Amino acid sequence: MTTFASAQDPLPSWNDGKVKESIVAFVENVTKVGSADFVPANERIATFDNDGTLWAEQPMYFQAFFIFDRIKTLAPQHPEWKTKEPFSSVLNGDLKTALAGGEHALLEMAMATHAGMTTEEFEAIVTDWLATATHPTTKRPYTEMVYQPMLELLAYLRANDFKTFIVSGGGIEFMRPWSERVYGIPPEQVIGSSIKTKFELRDGKPVLVRLPELNFIDDKEDKPVGINQHIGRRPIAAFGNSDGDLQMLQWTAAGSGPRFCLYVHHTDAEREWAYDRESKIGRLDKGLAEAATKGWTVVDMKRDWTPIFPNENE
Amino acid sequence: MTTFASAQDPLPSWNDGKVKESIVAFVENVTKVGSADFVPANERIATFDNDGTLWAEQPMYFQAFFIFDRIKTLAPQHPEWKTKEPFSSVLNGDLKTALAGGEHALLEMAMATHAGMTTEEFEAIVTDWLATATHPTTKRPYTEMVYQPMLELLAYLRANDFKTFIVSGGGIEFMRPWSERVYGIPPEQVIGSSIKTKFELRDGKPVLVRLPELNFIDDKEDKPVGINQHIGRRPIAAFGNSDGDLQMLQWTAAGSGPRFCLYVHHTDAEREWAYDRESKIGRLDKGLAEAATKGWTVVDMKRDWTPIFPNENE
Repeated sequence: MTTFASAQDPLPSWNDGKVKESIVAFVENVTKVGSADFVPANERIATFDNDGTLWAEQPMYFQAFFIFDRIKTLAPQHPEWKTKEPFSSVLNGDLKTALAGGEHALLEMAMATHAGMTTEEFEAIVTDWLATATHPTTKRPYTEMVYQPMLELLAYLRANDFKTFIVSGGGIEFMRPWSERVYGIPPEQVIGSSIKTKFELRDGKPVLVRLPELNFIDDKEDKPVGINQHIGRRPIAAFGNSDGDLQMLQWTAAGSGPRFCLYVHHTDAEREWAYDRESKIGRLDKGLAEAATKGWTVVDMKRDWTPIFPNENE
Repeated sequence: MTTFASAQDPLPSWNDGKVKESIVAFVENVTKVGSADFVPANERIATFDNDGTLWAEQPMYFQAFFIFDRIKTLAPQHPEWKTKEPFSSVLNGDLKTALAGGEHALLEMAMATHAGMTTEEFEAIVTDWLATATHPTTKRPYTEMVYQPMLELLAYLRANDFKTFIVSGGGIEFMRPWSERVYGIPPEQVIGSSIKTKFELRDGKPVLVRLPELNFIDDKEDKPVGINQHIGRRPIAAFGNSDGDLQMLQWTAAGSGPRFCLYVHHTDAEREWAYDRESKIGRLDKGLAEAATKGWTVVDMKRDWTPIFPNENE
């Protein structure tokens, strides 16, 4: 497959081998007019998890860092947080204790920091934060902690008339302010977790106010629910990295005609992180077993990707 | 404006006049590179109500006829319906009594007929019904009760790189099986009311089961909520016909830069129906007043449209 190394290679950051071959073979198969597996352009739906699939997710979800920074910023308006967990631990810099309460603690902190403002105000808060925040170990902006090979894959699929969607457990309004700039995925193709909003007229001007009330958690069994709610048809290709993506891949695989499911396996402790079955974040256990059984494509980051991040060698 | 009558006219079913002029002026204004009001293609979002805006809604919402037909079809499996309102009245052909319970009765009937099957099964039920069902007075298939001028408007906007969305109080899964074929609007650009669904593995095969539990009513104050949830950015143009669309138009109009809001006013009792302030279905009262105050475009169907329906004169 030396053609991959040509100037025409749409996936230059993917090393030659069976993984890259499986991607190109699928795309060529469904786009070739007259092929038995031809799929019309309007049905070429591809869904991508975000955390751990399009950008990194260690040492914890990047949105958690956003939440911690918001707690620090808002602390002067919340004197009660000084003595109230999990907030007090965040303010004392003890993130381990802050997160000891698990999902519940994280949700409580998310509600306290993501609600109470209008949708436009929240968008500005996210945009401002991303402009200056940096990753704790790499010191790079979070939007540069995206995977270069996946950026190429998104562009390659779109060049072949696929419509690319994000389907993430992360906050839908946390991703939309930058998904188009960074991934080329417009806000209307971002699906994520959400809180409820309420329409109000303020001095005659309509606003949507963000409420501290859960609307939807876009994870596990609810990823296909979110896909059906937003897209209304089944993807023909799905990309994930954890057990939280397994039902999305199952739902995608179960359609008729050609299907492509891919897991990103984090295997490069040197350039990124190495984790799977035992990880608290992005656990990949059942998914790895099912991928082997069903013949899904599994990316070995260490073997298949070079580089991992944009401008990695600068 | 004689140019409208040329072979190049993208809106041949719109009579010349200020309404047609306002549409064309807006589109030319936002698409002209270098214009102060130029809007990039990715921000050209246009939202359309469905009932009464893209297709007719008299003598009652077409989805209500679907519900009644489903009740008749399912009656053998529900012997209790013979003596239970509102079902018994439907089975006796007394729709007026069946609907005397208002929204609550309609919702109860919707739940009884729209839940309990998989999403794929429901799609097949809708598709099969539309293939044979006809409107009670015109005897035409419901998908031919769409407005020819609006079909041209949708195509005209898309030819100018607008992305067209439906934002309807009707059922999202009731519209998606035919919106692409009839309107050129793909399922992922349909927003509507919905019930909850649940992911299940049946004999190892994943399905989404429709539950008799409300998820979202996409009407009035919740139309901007639905728009934000699905699209994540504000439309620059919005089209409706009733007070149920008012908040969508307000939300659209309140953005910065050029905005276009249009109400379809049902004024043609001969070719369609004439109704506004006093109508139970599609009431247009507050919206008509606000349109006058804010200078929104108001279509007078009798004056501005010829024909109203496709193949009207055949």
